[in-house]
Amino acid sequence: MSDSIGKVKAQKVTLKGKFELECGQSFNDIELVYETYGVLNADATNAILICHALSGNHHAAGKYENEEKPGWWDSLIGPGKAVDTNKFFVVCPNNIGGCHGSLGPNSINHDTGDYYGPDFPIITVRDWVNSQAKLSDLLGIEKWHAVMGGSLGGMQALEWSYLYPKRIKKAGIIAAAPKLSAQNIAFNEVARQAILNDPDFEGGRYLDKSKYPKQGLKLARMVGHITYLSEEAMRSKFGRELKKEKLNFGYDAEFEIESYLRYQGDVFSESFDANTYLLMTKILDYFDPASNFEGKLVSAFESIEAQLLVVSFSTDWRFAPERSKEIVNALIEAKKNVSYLEIDSPHGHDSFLFANEDYVKGLSAFLEN
Amino acid sequence: MSDSIGKVKAQKVTLKGKFELECGQSFNDIELVYETYGVLNADATNAILICHALSGNHHAAGKYENEEKPGWWDSLIGPGKAVDTNKFFVVCPNNIGGCHGSLGPNSINHDTGDYYGPDFPIITVRDWVNSQAKLSDLLGIEKWHAVMGGSLGGMQALEWSYLYPKRIKKAGIIAAAPKLSAQNIAFNEVARQAILNDPDFEGGRYLDKSKYPKQGLKLARMVGHITYLSEEAMRSKFGRELKKEKLNFGYDAEFEIESYLRYQGDVFSESFDANTYLLMTKILDYFDPASNFEGKLVSAFESIEAQLLVVSFSTDWRFAPERSKEIVNALIEAKKNVSYLEIDSPHGHDSFLFANEDYVKGLSAFLEN
Repeated sequence: MSDSIGKVKAQKVTLKGKFELECGQSFNDIELVYETYGVLNADATNAILICHALSGNHHAAGKYENEEKPGWWDSLIGPGKAVDTNKFFVVCPNNIGGCHGSLGPNSINHDTGDYYGPDFPIITVRDWVNSQAKLSDLLGIEKWHAVMGGSLGGMQALEWSYLYPKRIKKAGIIAAAPKLSAQNIAFNEVARQAILNDPDFEGGRYLDKSKYPKQGLKLARMVGHITYLSEEAMRSKFGRELKKEKLNFGYDAEFEIESYLRYQGDVFSESFDANTYLLMTKILDYFDPASNFEGKLVSAFESIEAQLLVVSFSTDWRFAPERSKEIVNALIEAKKNVSYLEIDSPHGHDSFLFANEDYVKGLSAFLEN
Repeated sequence: MSDSIGKVKAQKVTLKGKFELECGQSFNDIELVYETYGVLNADATNAILICHALSGNHHAAGKYENEEKPGWWDSLIGPGKAVDTNKFFVVCPNNIGGCHGSLGPNSINHDTGDYYGPDFPIITVRDWVNSQAKLSDLLGIEKWHAVMGGSLGGMQALEWSYLYPKRIKKAGIIAAAPKLSAQNIAFNEVARQAILNDPDFEGGRYLDKSKYPKQGLKLARMVGHITYLSEEAMRSKFGRELKKEKLNFGYDAEFEIESYLRYQGDVFSESFDANTYLLMTKILDYFDPASNFEGKLVSAFESIEAQLLVVSFSTDWRFAPERSKEIVNALIEAKKNVSYLEIDSPHGHDSFLFANEDYVKGLSAFLEN
């Protein structure tokens, strides 16, 4: 029976020592916040690492004290759910560069005493996976039963599979792509320009100046949000419904979809950091495992030992099923143990957040068999 | 043989008298600029009206003195071209609300002596068609041989067909839709918010204050531009090509697609009016002929007498072929004389601007048979 995981609390850990980044810069001592659900077994073989996407964080399931809505993947993580916390010990960190407690642009740089802000280095999916490996060491997890995530989270699961082949038994790569398309990058670039050109962005030093590029971040989120929903979902949810009965011949929000987007943009821009948003879009743009192998994805996948599940959603136009199939085809060519699941779902890219029956069954079977 | 129409000049005319708008407001005396190509025959039966789209204007073909690039539809209009100026007298006006010489937000309101700016009323496709009908009277054209246009231009051609059934012999409705989808409106709303929230927009009174919301208009155009191109076109044109050989780990334009979008946005924002852009997106949002007929498109089409050609393009995801088919199906149900042409073209929505062979043949046959 599916049930909620109940009350949860975030934890904090410091990864001690020098941490080298792909860009050539480094950090000393990285603070990471994370949550865990379920119980780690005696031989530490039941741990699942959940990787979050662009706007996600470590709060994947359950509720904090007095919180109304549960974590972002609560529909899939809990007792009896797709990721069954009666069986598995689930770990979800907030990634470096995030804005929910882990080392990020709105952290203080101890070398200078100021906020990192725009000085925060541009990190990569590889940097994340390396930091997650250090977290695994601290938690006493030599080998993950599974690493999984949706969208940018799926890219981390994929990176784990070839970067640490001995440390991962299964990889769940959901609603992802082997790299961004020109159109994906184009949408990210619009989002970045919206933030970078907001006069309150102040070259990224808005925290020092007690300002905030709210409008830029709102616009960035509105653009992003369009790409997360399917056209079908928008049509059935909003269509051309007017807020009032008649056209108002003005620039107030007139159609329901306009209010919805403005609202989503407002809420998001009040709870997210603009420098983190910039960073996240860049991390997406940079992800391209084939680039180190003369463009050959199959070569990038050579080292993989894990069993892999690739999941796509029929109405996802941000990372369409075709993009997942690129991953699957390269894995097959590299003779890896891969299963592919294309789920019929109306929710576009956001489908990976919903507990669709086939999707839940597929994940359970993959994790438990 | 195809050839250029050569040097052209814009003309100006004043439509005298009171002009009532759908919103309830009215104008006195409307100035319109337009261009003509070819020669009107003695009985005025060879005239073709070209309707422009969101960012278009009256300069559809030929070149001005010292101009480098010809008008926006020069590939299709000229001697021996799809719209053959050896046979037809072609008229293309800049629509009311435009920013290239016709009455628009950057015109002086003679009642107040100030720029209209944000006081310019929100007009509709119907208002445009009514103003074009007045222009027809002035030019001595009782019945157009054809009215045609792409995108928002196609919507005007469609509106002509049921609003003035006796005054139009053929209607060419290219890369259009019977109304915007929620997703189309969503993209327009992002563009509007980008402009409205630019601090230099000054509530639309930027001309009075010698300011200009360049960043907002640039962003609006960048968003729009993504929807004009197909993903395939972007992929084959830019892919993930880097400007330099290596990643720069910063926020300068890094991928070719980023530079391209920024450049397109810059050029556009230097030559277009922000209030006009707002207005054009709203005119698109409002177009919905079925709305006066309880949502029944077939009822809206009852009055049509013209022969119609509907054209769509395989990779157009802004107004996909399915949207054109909605028009065609309603026309068939209303027992109208309609032909449908779906052109295989890689250029997305912008395909209507390119002289694809099948497209040119289809248009010629439609106009000349």
